[in-house]
Amino acid sequence: MTVLILTNDEDVTADMVVVRLNASGVPVVRLDPADLVGGVALSGEYAHGAFRGHLCSAGRLVSMDGLRSVWVRRPGTPAARVAEPSAWLTEESSQALYGMLRGSGARWMNHPDAARRARHKPWQLRLAQRCGLPVPATLITMFPQAARDFARRFPDLVVKPVSGAHPQEPPRAVPTSRVPPDADFAAVAFGPTLLQRRIAKRADIRLTAVGEGLLAARKAAASDADPDEVDVRFTADPSPWRGTEVPPRVAEGVRAYLREAELAYGAFDFAEDADGTWWFLECNQSGQFGFVEADTGQPIARTIAEWLARPAAAERRRVDGTTASVP
Amino acid sequence: MTVLILTNDEDVTADMVVVRLNASGVPVVRLDPADLVGGVALSGEYAHGAFRGHLCSAGRLVSMDGLRSVWVRRPGTPAARVAEPSAWLTEESSQALYGMLRGSGARWMNHPDAARRARHKPWQLRLAQRCGLPVPATLITMFPQAARDFARRFPDLVVKPVSGAHPQEPPRAVPTSRVPPDADFAAVAFGPTLLQRRIAKRADIRLTAVGEGLLAARKAAASDADPDEVDVRFTADPSPWRGTEVPPRVAEGVRAYLREAELAYGAFDFAEDADGTWWFLECNQSGQFGFVEADTGQPIARTIAEWLARPAAAERRRVDGTTASVP
Repeated sequence: MTVLILTNDEDVTADMVVVRLNASGVPVVRLDPADLVGGVALSGEYAHGAFRGHLCSAGRLVSMDGLRSVWVRRPGTPAARVAEPSAWLTEESSQALYGMLRGSGARWMNHPDAARRARHKPWQLRLAQRCGLPVPATLITMFPQAARDFARRFPDLVVKPVSGAHPQEPPRAVPTSRVPPDADFAAVAFGPTLLQRRIAKRADIRLTAVGEGLLAARKAAASDADPDEVDVRFTADPSPWRGTEVPPRVAEGVRAYLREAELAYGAFDFAEDADGTWWFLECNQSGQFGFVEADTGQPIARTIAEWLARPAAAERRRVDGTTASVP
Repeated sequence: MTVLILTNDEDVTADMVVVRLNASGVPVVRLDPADLVGGVALSGEYAHGAFRGHLCSAGRLVSMDGLRSVWVRRPGTPAARVAEPSAWLTEESSQALYGMLRGSGARWMNHPDAARRARHKPWQLRLAQRCGLPVPATLITMFPQAARDFARRFPDLVVKPVSGAHPQEPPRAVPTSRVPPDADFAAVAFGPTLLQRRIAKRADIRLTAVGEGLLAARKAAASDADPDEVDVRFTADPSPWRGTEVPPRVAEGVRAYLREAELAYGAFDFAEDADGTWWFLECNQSGQFGFVEADTGQPIARTIAEWLARPAAAERRRVDGTTASVP
């Protein structure tokens, strides 16, 4: 049973996981959907009530039935590297590849449906609340008056995009910024705006969840930190990430979140306040982990490799002798 | 409790359902996401572990908590009608609208995740097989040799797109065509190709499923029909659709399909052969129904209105006194 990794050639973080899988002797096929209709090809036949499909990459043939897991890391746009790319060929290739893989019994990190849903920030905030994770008071609005009322109740605010990243190619992260006290909010009428109570943080927390495994890292805020620098991705602070314990109530909330979101992998960002409370900021279902592993030595790549290497549900069923249910 | 309909202004099929809902006194808000940041606005606040959100359209304010159902009919691209549309504003508006609605307790026809998954033709074929619906032998391939082998075993073939519709604006349906006996299949290497055994049909079947309700219509093939005209959407045959009974085994398979696909609405296309077998061709989760209702008089619009008007899960829970689970 093979592990399938969908990512681009430059993805060095995936390399870290491939090394682990190779060392444990688990077969791995790594390919980029951008190479479809060229270096990568596929075929699948539906006949007599059954399906038999194959993927071919770099001369290796793998049966769709023989996949134990699929890791959707940083795949390129299907058929993007043909001589004359087109929206039509991309759509056909995407449907053929993902349409067939969706019918396989493989476990996903993460399933495309779960991944897509998990990108919705408003949905994230609601789910975090329901899972008992503390969420800073947040307003998403197009009404200037609602923004003004909110700013009166919560005078110290940050503003950030609703969607996370600007959809240019490559996507660009938009920094979280502090709202000046004299903001008038009239521009809110021209586009939905996300305002959030600023957490006076003493540390940033990055919690990487892989299946049931939770690995948290903490980066202390400098004591002389500029309170206007709210976005850890854009600050120059050289203090490293350090491994830290996950408080039991946070662990419980995060596991509930992953279960409801049907995610096998999630990178959670929290802000730790002076009382030690971890405030949920977001969960990135495809968040990077290389920088945390480099700083902390936490075995994130190994944990991912172990998760991917576990037998597929179909394999376990054969071993157990139980029968397969409808997909 | 309100029914929310997301569709464009020109959608006359939605009008048929709105008339029914109005007649039964159920509050309806109909809006086009394309009008966001203008005629349509929204606001949502997350505070103290709870969420309160509102939509505003044509001067009417509706609480997200007060939605019993959401009908995703033919919605426009969010914020497409502003003076200066941009991918960024569309993404922000889409996330804000659908991100909030996803957190509401409303029932969906159809949920965006289920709708997206249901568009994958290869996944449809596999699911139909698993649900016991007869599927004509089908090959999706990029290997000319696999295509030639398949054509030897099944000499009478049609070819159709993997994805269904060309992604131009507006999308254009690509007709299913008969494969000539001397086809050499070399071009298969340049893009995934879907080949399917041609069913010598004596009728086309359109089965419209609304919740548990199944309404089937049958259009007999003309006795002198050209066997090269395989796509009912592109033939000039003037014979009308007539209501017909759903065979019990088909009903069972269709209901299993809808359950597994998590669809509340689906338009199934079958080809009926000389033995009376209904061969599954596809299920369009947003298929039109106006032309069937016009020909047959089947109460499809009324059935949709009744489904949408049912109390929301949250309302039923309040009535039952049971507690709400995590979303």
